[in-house]
Amino acid sequence: MQGDQSGKSDGYEALEVATLGARLGGVGDVARRVGGDPAQWDVREVGDGNLNLVFIVTGETGSVVVKQALPYVRMVGESWPLPLYRAHFEYYALVRQAKRAPGVAPEVYYFDKAQALIVMEYLHPHVILRRKLIKGERVEGLGKVVGEFCARTAFRGSELSLSSPEKKADVGLFSGNVAIPAITESLVFTDPYYGAEMNHHTPELAETVAALRGNALLKAKAQRMLLKFTANTETMIHGDLHSGSIMATDDSVRVIDPEFSQYGPMAFDLGMAVANFLMAYFSQPAHRAPEALEAYQAWILEVIGECLNRFDDEFRRLWHTERSGILYPRALFEDQNQESDTACETLLLELRDDALAYCGIEMHRRVLSLAHNADFEEIEDTALRAKLETRNLKMGEELVVNPSAYRKAHALLALARAYHR
Amino acid sequence: MQGDQSGKSDGYEALEVATLGARLGGVGDVARRVGGDPAQWDVREVGDGNLNLVFIVTGETGSVVVKQALPYVRMVGESWPLPLYRAHFEYYALVRQAKRAPGVAPEVYYFDKAQALIVMEYLHPHVILRRKLIKGERVEGLGKVVGEFCARTAFRGSELSLSSPEKKADVGLFSGNVAIPAITESLVFTDPYYGAEMNHHTPELAETVAALRGNALLKAKAQRMLLKFTANTETMIHGDLHSGSIMATDDSVRVIDPEFSQYGPMAFDLGMAVANFLMAYFSQPAHRAPEALEAYQAWILEVIGECLNRFDDEFRRLWHTERSGILYPRALFEDQNQESDTACETLLLELRDDALAYCGIEMHRRVLSLAHNADFEEIEDTALRAKLETRNLKMGEELVVNPSAYRKAHALLALARAYHR
Repeated sequence: MQGDQSGKSDGYEALEVATLGARLGGVGDVARRVGGDPAQWDVREVGDGNLNLVFIVTGETGSVVVKQALPYVRMVGESWPLPLYRAHFEYYALVRQAKRAPGVAPEVYYFDKAQALIVMEYLHPHVILRRKLIKGERVEGLGKVVGEFCARTAFRGSELSLSSPEKKADVGLFSGNVAIPAITESLVFTDPYYGAEMNHHTPELAETVAALRGNALLKAKAQRMLLKFTANTETMIHGDLHSGSIMATDDSVRVIDPEFSQYGPMAFDLGMAVANFLMAYFSQPAHRAPEALEAYQAWILEVIGECLNRFDDEFRRLWHTERSGILYPRALFEDQNQESDTACETLLLELRDDALAYCGIEMHRRVLSLAHNADFEEIEDTALRAKLETRNLKMGEELVVNPSAYRKAHALLALARAYHR
Repeated sequence: MQGDQSGKSDGYEALEVATLGARLGGVGDVARRVGGDPAQWDVREVGDGNLNLVFIVTGETGSVVVKQALPYVRMVGESWPLPLYRAHFEYYALVRQAKRAPGVAPEVYYFDKAQALIVMEYLHPHVILRRKLIKGERVEGLGKVVGEFCARTAFRGSELSLSSPEKKADVGLFSGNVAIPAITESLVFTDPYYGAEMNHHTPELAETVAALRGNALLKAKAQRMLLKFTANTETMIHGDLHSGSIMATDDSVRVIDPEFSQYGPMAFDLGMAVANFLMAYFSQPAHRAPEALEAYQAWILEVIGECLNRFDDEFRRLWHTERSGILYPRALFEDQNQESDTACETLLLELRDDALAYCGIEMHRRVLSLAHNADFEEIEDTALRAKLETRNLKMGEELVVNPSAYRKAHALLALARAYHR
């Protein structure tokens, strides 16, 4: 697959609104779901992300989403080529997520490898969670679904559950994906901590940024976490589980866009999700009227606590009911009439420490590196933005350097409140 | 490559003493090195290992070693099939070791993939290090060569040094090897801690073994180390660096047999080597006359100290001179006029902790699992053997559970002396 690095594969052609019906109308699965005459399909390009073409296609029967990879980074342009094969890994990931955490990822209807094209479930009336968080809307079950999704994919994609031949074959398959992990490796773990070319940040942050970059202990720890990320195949991770990769209604939560999926650390997705909730929390004073602020921020903190606790609870449940891989086998514990709870709790504490360190790094990169969060970015008053971003950066620093002080969810939430004040 | 799992590939035929000259006489590189009429070559089968055919072939010009994988585990028989492709990984490993730690692995002259056959340098007058340790012979530079070999292969096979595309392609290549890591995973990390079918141990150890297997904390930590081993691609490791994989004269040290090579933890080889030195140390009272015992044991401890210190020193040297990968880039440290020594020392402490935990596990498996060490196994007096093995098992337990108490080499050596007394 490395052969695709240069861009287009044979016969690849980017979809267009005008030609989509003609190109996909002959695909039985797609035609049946959309219904009616393909020439009459309503096709809208809605890709507002950084990397791909995304269309919503509606016909007499229903709607589907068509997502096609472009051979370059959309937000930067053709000067930054990106291999089309990432769509293959997105497809592999969607299929595995459907099995490991049913009902959360969109259902896949059709996959065309050469066209780097996936036709999948149209989530409706779901909207991107980040928009809801900026608007101050609550989502029932948010922490629960995200926490359980992280626990289920972490556990069931690891050798706690999978057979070793199956898991190792999968690691081999995903090792063909080099370009996508390389983006995470530099953008997330390294670029925030020096003046990388594509970085940008709010001008008023200059002093705070200089202090962060002067903290050698912080940078050493961030790089230690990069080593854990880049040389770790514990489980298949989503790899980009921020609030733009979650769609929600008032009471339904779905996780989309696993094109950054790879085998990686069990705690990575959890840490990234929590980081994005924390950034929503810190940015609220710019988005809420004072009378609504406190209650909504309290709700976000509840979501974080719920997410962390559900992760642990679900991981414990799977530990006791689905531990069928080579790791921590029952032969060493239950079969010798010994409990394995201590082993599970010790592992969970390590996962929590890792999650919080990844969380802190994500809080930094979204303010200092290339791809920022709308939560902060849409705050036009840069002085206010910098003030809120500073709280976020400082809490992130504390989490990277000293995660084990915040193993209890209430300690983590108290830390967020302290920085907010 | 998984297709080879069942055993033989097309055209594979095991070599025999009588036919070896006819089969390899036509291979230019081999014929030139051996010299003379292949029909007159002196061919001796010397494989005393667990897995392969090994021949020494001598002619008018010189000698070579011919190593061929068998499609089953030699020490067990055809009932335990083992894929021939392990010879491919041994070849890949030898080539990479030659580049990363020149002059230590045997030079490769010829590789035949279909025959799972490698023709390589005949090491002479080298003998297996374990025999020398049992005989009480010293080897100048032993700790230095092993420590530096571990540091060089660890560093230069990681993303501290390699480019990410090169390293990740290599991880993909090695992910085809499932059967060999599976042996290590069960035999080393799990079997010692329950009554696995192929286990055996000295009868007088019953009580000690029951106590070990009753230590849930120990087992949890051993499994945590298994998770670190099985889901870790930090660097290409030798994978089986015991004193039977080292050949030596009085002043030359070479490392052979990397057929258990895989991408794994940077500290694994170091830990396994130190474990084997410690087992040589504990077994000495059965092999030495009392008047020679103390001095020889003191020498072994010196070797261990030298090995650990040389690992650190060489790792530090490479850190400062060859840090060209994505990890801990100079952009974050030196280019910002900040030292990176603290980051290096922190990483080295973590590597030391991991090495000592792997060391303790190796000390257990060699006494409790399938493949034992001659150091203990050749002690005919089982009461004495059990007494010495008990010291070894208890020190191993302490190292697995509490490695960071022995980060200083002198603390580790003091611990060995304390258990010996």
